[in-house]
This record gives sequence, structure tokens and C-alpha cells, in this order.
Amino acid sequence: MAGSTFGKILKLTTWGESHGPALGVVLDGCPAGIEIDEEYIQSFLDRRKPGQSDFSTKRNESDRVDILSGVFEGKTTGAPISMMIRNETQISRDYSNIASVYRPGHADYTFDEKYGFRDYRGGGRSSGRETAARVAAGAIAIKLLSELGVSFTTYVESVGDICIDPARFDREEIFKNKLYMPDKEAAEKASEYLRGLAADKDSSGATVKCIISGVPAGLGDPVFDKLDARLAMAVMSIGAVKAFEVGNGKVASKLKGSENNDEFYNDNGVVRKRSNNSGGILGGISDGSDIILTASFKPTPSIYKEQHTVNKAHEDVAIEIKGRHDPIIAPRAVVVVEAMSALVIADALLMNCTSRMDNIIKFYKD
Amino acid sequence: MAGSTFGKILKLTTWGESHGPALGVVLDGCPAGIEIDEEYIQSFLDRRKPGQSDFSTKRNESDRVDILSGVFEGKTTGAPISMMIRNETQISRDYSNIASVYRPGHADYTFDEKYGFRDYRGGGRSSGRETAARVAAGAIAIKLLSELGVSFTTYVESVGDICIDPARFDREEIFKNKLYMPDKEAAEKASEYLRGLAADKDSSGATVKCIISGVPAGLGDPVFDKLDARLAMAVMSIGAVKAFEVGNGKVASKLKGSENNDEFYNDNGVVRKRSNNSGGILGGISDGSDIILTASFKPTPSIYKEQHTVNKAHEDVAIEIKGRHDPIIAPRAVVVVEAMSALVIADALLMNCTSRMDNIIKFYKD
Amino acid sequence: MAGSTFGKILKLTTWGESHGPALGVVLDGCPAGIEIDEEYIQSFLDRRKPGQSDFSTKRNESDRVDILSGVFEGKTTGAPISMMIRNETQISRDYSNIASVYRPGHADYTFDEKYGFRDYRGGGRSSGRETAARVAAGAIAIKLLSELGVSFTTYVESVGDICIDPARFDREEIFKNKLYMPDKEAAEKASEYLRGLAADKDSSGATVKCIISGVPAGLGDPVFDKLDARLAMAVMSIGAVKAFEVGNGKVASKLKGSENNDEFYNDNGVVRKRSNNSGGILGGISDGSDIILTASFKPTPSIYKEQHTVNKAHEDVAIEIKGRHDPIIAPRAVVVVEAMSALVIADALLMNCTSRMDNIIKFYKD
Amino acid sequence: MAGSTFGKILKLTTWGESHGPALGVVLDGCPAGIEIDEEYIQSFLDRRKPGQSDFSTKRNESDRVDILSGVFEGKTTGAPISMMIRNETQISRDYSNIASVYRPGHADYTFDEKYGFRDYRGGGRSSGRETAARVAAGAIAIKLLSELGVSFTTYVESVGDICIDPARFDREEIFKNKLYMPDKEAAEKASEYLRGLAADKDSSGATVKCIISGVPAGLGDPVFDKLDARLAMAVMSIGAVKAFEVGNGKVASKLKGSENNDEFYNDNGVVRKRSNNSGGILGGISDGSDIILTASFKPTPSIYKEQHTVNKAHEDVAIEIKGRHDPIIAPRAVVVVEAMSALVIADALLMNCTSRMDNIIKFYKD
Repeated sequence: MAGSTFGKILKLTTWGESHGPALGVVLDGCPAGIEIDEEYIQSFLDRRKPGQSDFSTKRNESDRVDILSGVFEGKTTGAPISMMIRNETQISRDYSNIASVYRPGHADYTFDEKYGFRDYRGGGRSSGRETAARVAAGAIAIKLLSELGVSFTTYVESVGDICIDPARFDREEIFKNKLYMPDKEAAEKASEYLRGLAADKDSSGATVKCIISGVPAGLGDPVFDKLDARLAMAVMSIGAVKAFEVGNGKVASKLKGSENNDEFYNDNGVVRKRSNNSGGILGGISDGSDIILTASFKPTPSIYKEQHTVNKAHEDVAIEIKGRHDPIIAPRAVVVVEAMSALVIADALLMNCTSRMDNIIKFYKD
Repeated sequence: MAGSTFGKILKLTTWGESHGPALGVVLDGCPAGIEIDEEYIQSFLDRRKPGQSDFSTKRNESDRVDILSGVFEGKTTGAPISMMIRNETQISRDYSNIASVYRPGHADYTFDEKYGFRDYRGGGRSSGRETAARVAAGAIAIKLLSELGVSFTTYVESVGDICIDPARFDREEIFKNKLYMPDKEAAEKASEYLRGLAADKDSSGATVKCIISGVPAGLGDPVFDKLDARLAMAVMSIGAVKAFEVGNGKVASKLKGSENNDEFYNDNGVVRKRSNNSGGILGGISDGSDIILTASFKPTPSIYKEQHTVNKAHEDVAIEIKGRHDPIIAPRAVVVVEAMSALVIADALLMNCTSRMDNIIKFYKD
Repeated sequence: MAGSTFGKILKLTTWGESHGPALGVVLDGCPAGIEIDEEYIQSFLDRRKPGQSDFSTKRNESDRVDILSGVFEGKTTGAPISMMIRNETQISRDYSNIASVYRPGHADYTFDEKYGFRDYRGGGRSSGRETAARVAAGAIAIKLLSELGVSFTTYVESVGDICIDPARFDREEIFKNKLYMPDKEAAEKASEYLRGLAADKDSSGATVKCIISGVPAGLGDPVFDKLDARLAMAVMSIGAVKAFEVGNGKVASKLKGSENNDEFYNDNGVVRKRSNNSGGILGGISDGSDIILTASFKPTPSIYKEQHTVNKAHEDVAIEIKGRHDPIIAPRAVVVVEAMSALVIADALLMNCTSRMDNIIKFYKD
Repeated sequence: MAGSTFGKILKLTTWGESHGPALGVVLDGCPAGIEIDEEYIQSFLDRRKPGQSDFSTKRNESDRVDILSGVFEGKTTGAPISMMIRNETQISRDYSNIASVYRPGHADYTFDEKYGFRDYRGGGRSSGRETAARVAAGAIAIKLLSELGVSFTTYVESVGDICIDPARFDREEIFKNKLYMPDKEAAEKASEYLRGLAADKDSSGATVKCIISGVPAGLGDPVFDKLDARLAMAVMSIGAVKAFEVGNGKVASKLKGSENNDEFYNDNGVVRKRSNNSGGILGGISDGSDIILTASFKPTPSIYKEQHTVNKAHEDVAIEIKGRHDPIIAPRAVVVVEAMSALVIADALLMNCTSRMDNIIKFYKD
């Protein structure tokens, strides 16, 4: 299970199973001198904490974060920042059901094929709880970026077929409804839809949009480490994401060049674009306009309906999944998409400090 | 311009500008003992070679590959494989136009912002020609995978609004038409559409689909290096790709869990799925069914129509792009998507050799 | 403070300051199925625990390790293994002295120059306590290697001018004296020497030797990742190490080729060498004979003698360092050298699973 | 044969066998705007070119370098810099002798064990010729560093038992004698010694010293990526190096703390050290004084004396090595040590641009 580290200069390493004693993250490569404390990190964790609405699991985790290293007198020191969240309700129960049956849409079968066995308690390493660690690290990246004027607007754009209406877009509304939708009407419709699905023991897919404003031009690298390629990996690495788009995304495949190209113009000396189909990235490098991403989430695979599947002995069996599960993944994942995106942007921002010799000379000679 | 290396064990590093003396790739970490020669590599390069149809640039490059290292007596030695392709028609012409003007949809502006200046000849490093190097490396990954029974079916799925009809899907047809579409009728319609666009000095977007069969279960890692996350980065790092999907992709966001989950069943002792919405990957790990990817390409940004933009001095100017450009990117990119996907799968396959202690003991004790 | 991660497939990331709440390590990429538990890890930590002899600090840390993830029902799962050690005696005291003065031979000045400020409590991140985390990870690497017949003999070879006599070498003796020397007489002489130095408020340098037996031929890579180059980095990254040697090391520079070359011979079909000046590595790859390393440690820089130095304001000052410090670093570092070496060998062993196509085919086809 | 890439931000990837068509290097991550051309690179390659003295092989290679990418109008563009050197005298001859026999002190046996077979022509990938590629890349790192006032003094310090006399140290002399020794008398004595060895079909070991002046304080990272740990790996990765020392190196193991500590003092506001036993690095971070390294080279293993060994069939055989070989490796390796050290220092210098938030804000806000 290599692959628990992400990033080039700013690197996070997450660890922990959903029902082990704790989970956490080590963030290495963070510059010295950023003011952070546990309350700040907590405010991000609270956005994905379970038990906040009808549409999230009733598992009662307070998700309190402890900063164990890398912060001294309220500021990052440059040392790796270790943060830990205790699992409080991981009391052992009877997992014999899950232990031997492969839930459809889950990683049970693939883990057993890869490792020969697995920690079957509550999803183990592939549980959504792992993302709490990402959010803690992402909060620091967001703080770093905020000092340079970068800000995030992230929200649920659609639930099933119910999509927000751009004409009713209200940034304030995002934090007012439990679905993190910027359109009150759509949020209400979606809530109703989800309540119906829950009653029907079913779940729904959704999309999450992330808009990143204030990113300076020049971030990202031109070939494999294109800014959008790094963002794609970061966002697709969140469980349940099945599609990633930048700018107008899939729509671009249907357009003509004359429709899709964004024309540049001079706005009092500043280069701007008349449209932003590119989503703020050209040739893998940020162009100074908003970076726009969309992630498509599949419906929660844990549904209460009876399903057909096989067990570890490869026998056909039926399964009814117990426990409490969110009928939709996206609302709690909004902050995860934001966190992962921030980690990529912050990393590119650090990397970009080294791209020009004139700047490096200035850095060392001043 | 860090970021020219991709991969974890099997690593490729590409180099070269479109109008420099040559471009190339170094593939490191390739196991010893794979039979390859230049003719084999060349057959892949020929699939993206320019000048093959009305819809590709008339630049007359033979794209001949030289293997400079890492192969001895017809087999890979384990040493880095260096391959080079000479640029034959990079004769200098007058670039003063491009040198000072930022073409809409291109990386001219972002390169200048990042590096202070750029090699403006024909796109420099951000040219599509860079992908020839990826194809050469990918051909070796495909050979490696073929020895384990993995095969690829990659094609253009749609051009603008014209999509292939699954009922007419014909694998043989892919190599019979210039658009690499597996549906003769759709290919003809698309050709007509593109001829119209060309006459109108315009270009079209498209989608490319890649189906990978025979991948053993267990490849990929559960957190950041999910197999689909690595594939997303690999494919999004190809210029002009604006969206990446795995399995049913964006459609999953509209479905219910009961519709989207793929049920497992026992097929004479083998675990199979009744559907494949997941696209062959669960929890970031291959599940043994076909891996299915879709990439959305934007229309060629170089169009002959007059466009408004700015120059290096940030003055508003009009530009008419000269030269010969493809009215569509996707057909020549089919083999690039295949190459990048193969590099990811092969890398995961190597990495997976180290995931279980019992296998490692067998490896050293036998 | 990037650079807290080491390894290519088997990767450890350490975190923690000497006087923060805890320190720890995340070991990622460890194969599934290795039996470990906390008692096993603890036995290694106890070898570097403070307070065990007259020659180690009286700081009373029990150094109890908690395994927080990656182990299930007594076996590694393939998931990252997080281990934590609480700092129990980090009660705040008056550090105003150290906070503003740059101790000779320490990293106080360089940290301030790099980061602008530092966590000055007890050495912060550059404290020797950080190595406890390495030992915990190394213990797992040693377990992995032991399953393949690899074993370690690591000891203090010399203290100041007092060197062990190869004629009196006694492996059992290593764990019988507090200096971890395999020669009882030398250990007694060295103890006397150290007592004299302690009385004189001074400290001593020393060398540590590590012999690794049972390493299969073929580990390591031929160019930058030569096995000895990786070992050099691993060992030189331990604080206070000033020299690294493989085989006969520095002596080789004085010899003739005819003296230094190790002749091969056929020992009942097995290739062996008549001597082992190379230290078990040829061209960066293990040759099947013992791997032999020597690390030279400088004397503990914290001495009680008055020393001249400067403070943060760059004023000349005198300093008398308080607290309890080891008069010699090497004995407690023996297990650290062993741990770091094991991590390198285990990593190379995993990497080597991917070097031949015939083996890979066997892996997937069996 | 992974492991052909070295560096974190500034990364070089070398490729090529000694008797293939060419060898080369790709240097990625180099900042834009550094003036370089082929003449400059060539001047470094000429320092390790064969055939320059009685003590270097008569192989007649001109070692002409071609820059194939990454440089435009005389300046680096930020794109990967590809450089190639053609092998001109790799005409095939009869290698049947070497092909089946394992030369003592060479990597023939270990390559066969690792890969199952090898490119046996002239050492293949493990040939010293591979270092030409490192020198080409290192020349660029040296140029980068020179713009910040960093300079190198690298030389042969000892040949067998003949050591330079510090009292006769003459920097100018280094380039005046064929052994690159800064002491004319020692150089003459060593020459005589080597002539005797050559007559006797033997070879000699030697040491190389590298002094790096003008390095700003603050480079390097505190844990695994200590500046001296990175230098150790870089230097030990050069074939035939058996020991690496920083500062007083092995001598430190014999000293007392009061002898070994370097006292700081205030020199008109600048912090300096009264001695430099540490070799310019404290806690893994540069302290502003000279960085001092020593590499110990074993004697050339290819000697003309008859030696006993085994062949591929593991039969005992005698071998007399033909061809022309240097009776000493170190003089031609002086520039390789310098190149590898420069690559590490330059990489640390780039990485250090990202260590403080205040500097990053200044970078983006100015």
C-alpha cells in the first residue's frame, strides 16, 4: 500500500484505518512562519464531520485534531507537521458479515486480491474517514494560499439530475444548507429527492465544483506535471470520484475552436480573457483567471437494498448492508475536493519559486 | 520546467522542442529481457505521424526513432532506454509573428509569465510533437503488458456531436479510417463535418476511449496512487485534454446506488461483475474486468479565422494563424492516450510485485 | 524541512521534536503479511533508550511505542504503519539560555539562518531523539529481511583511539557491555577512557561497524542508486556521522589493484570471493558476500566545558551547557545504523523484484 | 536498472553504455535564463576525456557534446536540457573473453546475477564513461552556482601513500599537472610511483578532495536530506568510491568534543567559525563556511597481471585483461566529484527558496 504520500515539495502522508485507534497525516515541506492552530484546522474538519444532517452517517465522531509536531509558538517551523484524529467509536462489533462478503461497489474484493486479506472493519484503509487526514493538511495549504490572496469557492453543483441554476448562485448560501449548494431552491429540491431515496434504501450520485480565485499566472509545469494533470490525480484519488473536468470539461469535446478559444484582451495593462473555457490553465500553467474544476461522484455504494454478490469463497450470496451510511457522498466531500486542490496549488506555487534564475539571484542577493 | 519525468518504478523522461534538432525520451526501470526493436517502436509512432490524412498537419516528418541505449542483442538489458527522433523539417522561418503574439488557447502567454521568455518556434516544449516521445516509451510498456495478456482497444468515440453507435462497433474498422473510429458510418459523417469545418477555417473537439483488457486484479494502490488517479494524471497531461472519466464517468453522478453498483457473481469459480460501471477499478485497485477510460479533447486552438488577442507588450491585436494545423487533435492522440495508459498500468504491475510477503519469499527462495 | 521521507518503495516519514508531545514515523510500502507487534518493535527501541548506562543521558524516557495503523490481527496489512512515541519528560524548563545562544557543533545557528527562528527546546527537530522513529521503522525492515535469511551484526568498533582487536571478536559480547563492543577488553578500556573524559567535562568520537549477512546477490542499481550510495546517504543522515566507508573503505585509496581486487572462486558451484575488500557490493549491486559498513561519529558536541560562541544578536559570548548529555554518541547509535541500513537493504530487495521480465511473468502466471 | 535519475528539483537522468552508439543526460528542473553553450560544457568534459596523459586510457574519444534541447538563443529556457555524446570508437571487437568471465573488482558477476545477462562490451552501463553525462549536467549546475558566488576547488589529495603537503598547496598547480594535484612535488612523486605500477601491470588507489566556497548558510534539510547525506550519496554513486568524508571526517572519531567543536565568533557582524572541522555543514544545513569533502577511490580493478576468477559457468579460470586502462581512476574523476557535488548544492539551493513564508510572499508580491 505504497502511495500514501502525495506532493512534490509540499508532501502529505496519510495513515490510519476507519476502525483503528486513530488516523492522521504528516505534512512535510511546509514553509516556516505560517500561523496555524488546532481551532483553525478543526473548522475545516467540522465541514466533513459525520452526523451533521439527515444525509450523513450517524456515526458520532467528534473528529478532534491534535497537532503533534511542526508548530511552535503558533507558527509552522518548517518541520513536518503531524496531526492525529482519534477514532472514538471504533468499538468492535460483529464484522463477520462484511469480513467474508464482497460488497458491490466497494474495495473488499480488490483488497483481498491484492493483499491476501484485509482489515475488514468499516472499510479499513479505503474508508472515507481517511479523507479527514487530507482535510487537516489541506487546511494548512489553504492558509498558505490565503496569504497570497488565493481563495476557494467549493460546492455541490448537482445531485442526481437536480442542478443549481447559475442565475440563482449565492455564495453565502453554500454554508447555510446541509448539502453545501449555492442555490437554496436546488438544495431544497435535492433534499427532498434524497429523503425519497433514503426511504427507498437507495443513494444518489452528485457533482462538486471548485473555483479557485487569485492564483498567480505561471504555476504548474508544461509536460507531465501540468497543473490540471496534478489536480486530476488529486481529485480522482478521492474515493467515489469517477470523472474530473477542468474549465468547460467534457463540453469542449463538442465545440468548435472558434467557440472554445478564450480571447485575450488588455484590461488597463493587465492581460485578461473574455471567457474562461480553459478553466484558468493553458498548457498546464495557470493563466491568472479562475481555476475551475468539476468532480463527479458516484452514488454511495453502501445501500440498504438487498444486493447479489459473492463471498470470499466465491459463492453467490445476497447481502443487506447494515449500519448507518450517507445516502450521498458529495456534501461531506466538498471540503475534501477543496483540500486536495489547495495542496496541489500550494505545491505548484512553491515549485514555481525556482523557475527563473533572475528571481533566484534576487532571492539570495537581497 | 521540472515535471518531465513520470512514473514510480517505470519512469519516462521526455525532452525536446518541436523545432529543436531532436526530441526524445529515456525510459528507466524497464525490466531486463523484453524483446524490442526499432521497427516495433516505429509502428506506434506511425500512428501519430503527421501528414497521414486531410485532418492532420502537412508537416512532413518521418518521425524515425533511434534506440540509443538499453537494448542489447534485441532485448532490454534493464538499463535506461534512450530513444531519439530527429526533427527534420525544423528549418527556420519567420516566427516574428508568433514570437510576440499570444495565440488564444495556447500556452504562449503562460510560458512567458512563468519563464520570462520562451522558445516560440512552433510551440516549443508545449507542442504536440512532445507526445511522440511518450508514444515511443508507451510502445515498450505495451510490449511488456502484452506478455502478460493485457491488450488495448483505443479509438475516437465522438467528433463534435457525432458519436459512434455501439451497435455498429467494429474493432477492425478502427485502423481502416483516418479518424480511428470503430464505426464506419460515424467516421464518414465525422469526416464530412471536419471537411466543412476546415473550409470554414475552424476545428473540432472530440473524445477518445481506451479499453484495457486482461489486466489482473490487484493493480494500483488504495490512497493517492489509486490506479484511476494515476491514469487521470497521465491522460490529463496530454495537451488539450479537458476531462477524464473512468467507467461510466460523469454519468455516475446522475445515477442511484442501486443502478450504479456492479453486482459480483461466481462464473465457474471466477469472480465477475454483471456490469462494469466502475470501469474495472474499485477503491483504486483493478478488479479484473476491462478498464475503461474516456478523454475529452478540446478543438485545435490553432484556427485560421481571425482572432482577437494581445501581444507581449499587452496591446490588443488581431491574429490570423498561418501554417498547417490539424482541424482535430484526437485521431493522432489515440495512440498517445494508449501509450500513457499503458505506462501507468505497467508501472502498477511492477509495483504490485512487492505487495505481499508470501510472494516476495517465493521470489527469492525459488 | 522537506526531506523527512526516505526510501523508494519502502518509505518512512518521521516527525516530531525532542520536546514536543510526541514523535513518530509512518512506514509506507511495507508488504502485507509480516508478523509484528509492539513488543518486537520495543526491543529495538530499548537498545537506544536513554538512561541505560553511565555514558548515556539521564533523561528518563521509557520510549514506549504505539502502533496506530497498518497492522491487523498481528500482521502488516500493506497499509501505512504509523508508530508513535510519547515524550514523557518534556516538561518545560527555562530554555532562555539555549534559545538565544548558538552552541558550537550544533544546528542552532543553521536552523535560525534557514527558517528565521527555531523550536529551541532540546534541539527540536535536529535532536537525536528523532532517530527513535527510524529505529521503530527499521525494526520492521529487519523483520522483513530476517524472513529471507538476512541478519545484522552491528557494534562499536573504536572509541577515540581504542579499537577492538579482531582476534578477540566475540559476537555475544556486544550485548553484554554498555558500549556494544564485541571485545570485552576494549570495552573496559573504553569505559575507563570515557569516565575520564566525563570527569573532564569532555566527550569522545567513535566508529560503528555494521555487517549484513545473507543478502542475496543482485540488490541495488548500477548508477545513482548504487546500494552503497543509498547506504551512504542513509547512514550519513544520522546526526554526528562524519564519514561513511564500505568494505575496506579509506584503506582502498592506499592499495594497489593487485592487493585490493577480490578474486572469485568456485565453491561447489557457488561463486565466492577469496577476500571481501569490496564489502559485498560491486558496481553498486550486492555480490552475495557480507556487506560491511563503517560510520565515524564525531564526539558529542554538548560538553560541560566553557566554550566561546556567539548569540542570536551575533555578539561574542561564553557558554556552559547544562543538562545531562552522553559523553559519547555511538553506543546508542548502533541500533540506528542497523535500522537505517536495514531500510535500504529491504527497499533494494523489494525494488529488485521488478528487474527481470522472466520473474515478473512467473509472478503473475503462477 | 531504475535509479538513473538523481535530484529533487534539479534532476538529471543519464543513459548510455560505453560501447553503444552514444551516451547522454537529461537535466530537468533547471531554472530559465542561465547562459550556457556547448563550448562551456565541453571545457568540463575535456577534464575527464581519455588519452590526455600516460595515466589515462588511450581510447581516443573526442567526447564532443551536443545540446539537443532546453537552450534557446544561448539561454536555458526552463525546459529539460538534453545533451548527447557520441561514442566514436565503439567499433566491435572480440569480447568473447570478457563476455563469459567475471573480472575481479568489476560488476560483471553482479549484473549477470541481477539481470540474467548483460551488455558485456566494455563495461556496458557500469563503465566509467557514464560519468561523462554527469559532468555535462554538473557543468550547468556549476554555472548556476557561479552566478551566486559559489566556486569549487577540486583535486587529487593523495595517490597511494603519497599525499600533498598543505604547506605547498598551490591552486594554480592543479591544472598544470596531469594528476590534478595542487602540489608540484607530490605530483612528481606520484607520477613516478604510477609509472612503476604501470610497468608492474598494477594500479593505485587515491583520494580526491572538493572544497566548495561561497555557499550561503541555510542549504540542506535537517533529517534524511541532510546536505552531507545527499553529497555522500552523490559521491558514493561514482564508481570505485569506497569512502566519503565531510570536514575532518574519519578523524573526528578519534577526537574529544573540546578538540572537534568549531567555536563561533563575531567577525564584524558576520558569524564565523574559528576552525572548520564540521566541513561547512551543521545538522545537515550549510553554515556559510567552506564545504569540504573527501572521496577515497579504490585502485583501477582492470590490471594486466594474471588474476584468478570464475566464468559464467562458475568454473575457475585465469584472466589477463587486455585493452588500455588507466593505472589510476582519481585524476579523471576529479571533475566528476565536482560535478556531482555541484548538482547537490544547486538542488539544495533551489529547494531552499521555499523554506520561509516571508520570502515566498516577497517573491510573489514584488
